[in-house]
Amino acid sequence: MSEQQDFLRQTVEHLDIKQVNVVPLIEMMGKTAFQARNLARAAEIFDEMVNDTDCGVILTLAGSMVSAGQREVILDLLRANAVDAIVSTGANIVDQDFFEALGYRHYQGDIFANDDQLRRLHIDRIYDTYINEDELRVTDDTTRVIADSLAPGAYSSREFIREMGRYLVENGLGEGSIVRTAYELDIPIFVPAFSDCSAGFGLVAHQVANPDAHVSIDSAKDFRELTELKVKHGKTGLFMLGGGVPKNFVQDVVVSAEFLGYEDIEMHAYAVQLTVADERDGALSGSTLKEANSWGKVSLAREQMVYGEMTVTFPLIAGYVWHKRNWEKRTPRRWAKLIDGKFPVKVAQ
Amino acid sequence: MSEQQDFLRQTVEHLDIKQVNVVPLIEMMGKTAFQARNLARAAEIFDEMVNDTDCGVILTLAGSMVSAGQREVILDLLRANAVDAIVSTGANIVDQDFFEALGYRHYQGDIFANDDQLRRLHIDRIYDTYINEDELRVTDDTTRVIADSLAPGAYSSREFIREMGRYLVENGLGEGSIVRTAYELDIPIFVPAFSDCSAGFGLVAHQVANPDAHVSIDSAKDFRELTELKVKHGKTGLFMLGGGVPKNFVQDVVVSAEFLGYEDIEMHAYAVQLTVADERDGALSGSTLKEANSWGKVSLAREQMVYGEMTVTFPLIAGYVWHKRNWEKRTPRRWAKLIDGKFPVKVAQ
Amino acid sequence: MSEQQDFLRQTVEHLDIKQVNVVPLIEMMGKTAFQARNLARAAEIFDEMVNDTDCGVILTLAGSMVSAGQREVILDLLRANAVDAIVSTGANIVDQDFFEALGYRHYQGDIFANDDQLRRLHIDRIYDTYINEDELRVTDDTTRVIADSLAPGAYSSREFIREMGRYLVENGLGEGSIVRTAYELDIPIFVPAFSDCSAGFGLVAHQVANPDAHVSIDSAKDFRELTELKVKHGKTGLFMLGGGVPKNFVQDVVVSAEFLGYEDIEMHAYAVQLTVADERDGALSGSTLKEANSWGKVSLAREQMVYGEMTVTFPLIAGYVWHKRNWEKRTPRRWAKLIDGKFPVKVAQ
Amino acid sequence: MSEQQDFLRQTVEHLDIKQVNVVPLIEMMGKTAFQARNLARAAEIFDEMVNDTDCGVILTLAGSMVSAGQREVILDLLRANAVDAIVSTGANIVDQDFFEALGYRHYQGDIFANDDQLRRLHIDRIYDTYINEDELRVTDDTTRVIADSLAPGAYSSREFIREMGRYLVENGLGEGSIVRTAYELDIPIFVPAFSDCSAGFGLVAHQVANPDAHVSIDSAKDFRELTELKVKHGKTGLFMLGGGVPKNFVQDVVVSAEFLGYEDIEMHAYAVQLTVADERDGALSGSTLKEANSWGKVSLAREQMVYGEMTVTFPLIAGYVWHKRNWEKRTPRRWAKLIDGKFPVKVAQ
Repeated sequence: MSEQQDFLRQTVEHLDIKQVNVVPLIEMMGKTAFQARNLARAAEIFDEMVNDTDCGVILTLAGSMVSAGQREVILDLLRANAVDAIVSTGANIVDQDFFEALGYRHYQGDIFANDDQLRRLHIDRIYDTYINEDELRVTDDTTRVIADSLAPGAYSSREFIREMGRYLVENGLGEGSIVRTAYELDIPIFVPAFSDCSAGFGLVAHQVANPDAHVSIDSAKDFRELTELKVKHGKTGLFMLGGGVPKNFVQDVVVSAEFLGYEDIEMHAYAVQLTVADERDGALSGSTLKEANSWGKVSLAREQMVYGEMTVTFPLIAGYVWHKRNWEKRTPRRWAKLIDGKFPVKVAQ
Repeated sequence: MSEQQDFLRQTVEHLDIKQVNVVPLIEMMGKTAFQARNLARAAEIFDEMVNDTDCGVILTLAGSMVSAGQREVILDLLRANAVDAIVSTGANIVDQDFFEALGYRHYQGDIFANDDQLRRLHIDRIYDTYINEDELRVTDDTTRVIADSLAPGAYSSREFIREMGRYLVENGLGEGSIVRTAYELDIPIFVPAFSDCSAGFGLVAHQVANPDAHVSIDSAKDFRELTELKVKHGKTGLFMLGGGVPKNFVQDVVVSAEFLGYEDIEMHAYAVQLTVADERDGALSGSTLKEANSWGKVSLAREQMVYGEMTVTFPLIAGYVWHKRNWEKRTPRRWAKLIDGKFPVKVAQ
Repeated sequence: MSEQQDFLRQTVEHLDIKQVNVVPLIEMMGKTAFQARNLARAAEIFDEMVNDTDCGVILTLAGSMVSAGQREVILDLLRANAVDAIVSTGANIVDQDFFEALGYRHYQGDIFANDDQLRRLHIDRIYDTYINEDELRVTDDTTRVIADSLAPGAYSSREFIREMGRYLVENGLGEGSIVRTAYELDIPIFVPAFSDCSAGFGLVAHQVANPDAHVSIDSAKDFRELTELKVKHGKTGLFMLGGGVPKNFVQDVVVSAEFLGYEDIEMHAYAVQLTVADERDGALSGSTLKEANSWGKVSLAREQMVYGEMTVTFPLIAGYVWHKRNWEKRTPRRWAKLIDGKFPVKVAQ
Repeated sequence: MSEQQDFLRQTVEHLDIKQVNVVPLIEMMGKTAFQARNLARAAEIFDEMVNDTDCGVILTLAGSMVSAGQREVILDLLRANAVDAIVSTGANIVDQDFFEALGYRHYQGDIFANDDQLRRLHIDRIYDTYINEDELRVTDDTTRVIADSLAPGAYSSREFIREMGRYLVENGLGEGSIVRTAYELDIPIFVPAFSDCSAGFGLVAHQVANPDAHVSIDSAKDFRELTELKVKHGKTGLFMLGGGVPKNFVQDVVVSAEFLGYEDIEMHAYAVQLTVADERDGALSGSTLKEANSWGKVSLAREQMVYGEMTVTFPLIAGYVWHKRNWEKRTPRRWAKLIDGKFPVKVAQ
């Protein structure tokens, strides 16, 4: 299929924040106005979270960040112990990161491409990026293989993704992927809408082939586990790339803990969101963090929205925090080991 | 808590599309330009879907449509048999529709409210709308009660929502709610990220209280069931309110069916999306339906994006279709009865 | 050039708000949320302006409203005496309305057209609309002819546009155009950036051909005349379609009057803006009307922004006001006759 | 007015692109996707313009860039001879740059401020920035003083702004302002809607006080002068910050030259626009540069839109070009001296 290869020539390369010290630039932005100032304030708040060694930091991922060359930025945060848990869409974790872990790449494409032609060539388009659809089918199928290898039962997405990490290690694959690195560092990854991605295809195929006893993905278990982390750990901060289910899910964990009867659950002490979404349609993705305060989810003290497309804003903010090096004080929190399904005795009862 | 009541005075009232015949207005819009023309074309395409009695129509819901007074618009489409299945966020179905079914209401609020004060008064804010948080906690708890009443095991969100409909009928509640009406008309409702809403709180409490044997929400099962509908029914059209997980989920079902080995699965023959999201950030919510064609999900022939906030665009489009009355040819499809977990023999093998 | 004609087949037709009574629809929208509620409140405020016979109503036009089929909506407001002055971009008034007054039309086009091909065919594109470039050159040239016919000197854009109206009447052209109707009703039209349109080409040609004595367009005179109206009339309200120079210009008139030493100049008592612009970039087009209050330009009491594309929101709001018929109390204000360059004695000195 | 001073404490400081070499960062962005890639491509195209010593570079300014700390970025481009002419809104040049040249400053403010209180304290707000309104009135009045000092007649905005530069030099003010630097470097500044800013107040006062013989601002003359530059110079490139009148004006100059009968006028050979505006409303500010090609204004070869708020994107792009140092080959073009109102003999006639 050589015509396909004509389109799949120029790979997306992951940006490396370590190469340019943007700290003086961000500090100057903090003295200006509009979104540059918001961006600088968000960078400071993220740095405060990291500098606050009591604070568990949760990163949320929406949009298409890995295919857009942001994988290494995320990895640098993981390796710096600047992130203790991830809540993501399936696209970033499975279709994009696990896909690259299997040895595949994303390609630079053209937003004016003829989509009908792309479809005939088995090329999937994400705005200006191309994916080899045949390679994506292999990814789907790998999730099926992993599901087939597990004992039947209800798994959280976190447990399943942990098995994906193990699969990579055992097969000598995916060095430098998010899934494998998180596995090795015991950083839990939650994908609350886990079927809504490449893994969904593999899991449906697994269940259809095994109608009586099979792997289920229990989204309530995901929420239970994240609530468990909140209850056991206490102080938390959020660094949110985009909105969607990950934003809502991670904010709701405060309410979930209260609903279980725990009193004095702290709201998220720090919260930053990068987005292009607008609050004026009333949807969650663009809703302000002040609005989240009315729900008792996010403290008003240290919160900042940054309006801008994330391939530009994320490396600037992450780069600021990386080059400030306050993360050097942190040690791996290994939250994946903290989850055992046992909730502590409630303080208040 | 009388101070709370000072804020909760003016209820949101659901808009009734039956009262104004907008057909001539939409027809005139079709002769103009920009989004008025796109809106008119989207209305025509939705009407074609409805007029095509072979076509199964799937409605997706994101954002906060029920709290924003759009419940009756959705209901009028259900009662007209113009919608055969719903894929939604949890917020619309549980926190908002089921909440109202229990007898509660949404209130008109103020975007400049002091969120810290609202929090202290147990008032949750969605942009310009208020919710009594104590009533929301009752809603959460009702989902716990329903979970407690079910046999342990893995349920699709659809199955659980069906039980919510049954609960309403059995308790004489929720006349005129989406959950109850869909239950009565056998219209399946899928919420692929089911824990990401009020039901999540109830389910976590249920699981914590029943650590050994409990209800799980299997998101793979949801995807399997929707795939089953696609395989069994064939021709489909999409009417998408917003993006998010529902948009992705329902589009992916074409690929899922192919991945199971079914050949000649039709792409969605018609597709309309209402959104304010922009394609330029590469995220799925704003991605064009032409891009979806590259993935083999949506046919290019009859697709239209409409850029506009949905409380304005949805009643206009739904009103056009309602007053065209082509839905009078349709009979209830009762897709909930079509789902039995058994996939037909593959044509191609 | 028959290939050109292949593209110029389907004319844009102007929408007629008189045909559908949207009052009940807008009233229902007012009981919902988000932009539907904002739209309804904006419609009410515009209706209050019209109902307040002391209030001079100024309409501002940005974007491309006339080419987009909104000319008749504007005309219905003019004929109803619901608008006492217009401040516009040149595109709406010259390139689009005067162009149509000369007998030309806009055509429905395709946003995916090959722009290079269009250029070769002398077709100009505005998003999904086509213009015959040769006809636009005739329009440019007609403004040159009008300039050539005038005595040399400095004219306000208002004075020049009045001459354009006279030209249409004298040549039996442009029945039902904005320029001619405003001329006949003595409604002044200001275009503060008058060279930034088709007229600019004609005026440059006029000046190049008449280097020593020619027509100038004095933008300070425009501002002086509008200030004169504000000083002489008093109470004013704004109905703003889009932002840009017209929004800024008309708001500034309050400050201009104060700067001349008039005390007790009222801020604009009512203000409505329709826009898709966002406040987060700090630019004027999306800046809130609350921000305008800090400048002393707009009263906070009755102001409303509506976020939505104007081909959808404008006919709904104008239709509401038209069908409420409060304009029947109004008589033509004939503001064009009020302008004589003489400012009244200052009250305070 | 000490309460006023409580709000006016933290000055906006102008960002200095010289301090951080962003070239490696931008190069990495060029290998990713979405807007980071567009930003990198735009930076490359701007660098090509600068590197092309035949190319006259025109910078357009909309929004509020100077108050937002971007003055020094613009100045560094002027001093590097990377910009040969400026087309701007009045706000940037008069209300903000000339204002600072008179010794005043902008202050960091709060978007949630009480605008009514600000108004009473004579503080004007631009999103998150404050201005002392009394200082702004001095600025207005200074333009009146300058107008009073000139011989009556019709001036282009460029001529008037040149007088503002002269005023600064003669009064020993405004070292490091755009107006003064451009004056000293003979870089023409055009403000096509010149009354739509602080200068408008001064000019109206000047005309009211001198009803018979006064300074006029002839916007047609501006357009004529810019057309003259295009005709005399030939190859041009555009670097556009935002849209609005400056974008339209500078693009139209190609058509204007053709309309005068010059044949073989080159379209703008390079064009970059930074904006948050969206094309879907059909307005000029967000219209694509491909659309501009249909009008024969912009070549398709080297054009790029960058979607993002400009306080973030502008310093990155300008910093890239500055640190690439291709501007070292350029010498001052001193276009202000090229304008004499005499058009060359037409080639084709």
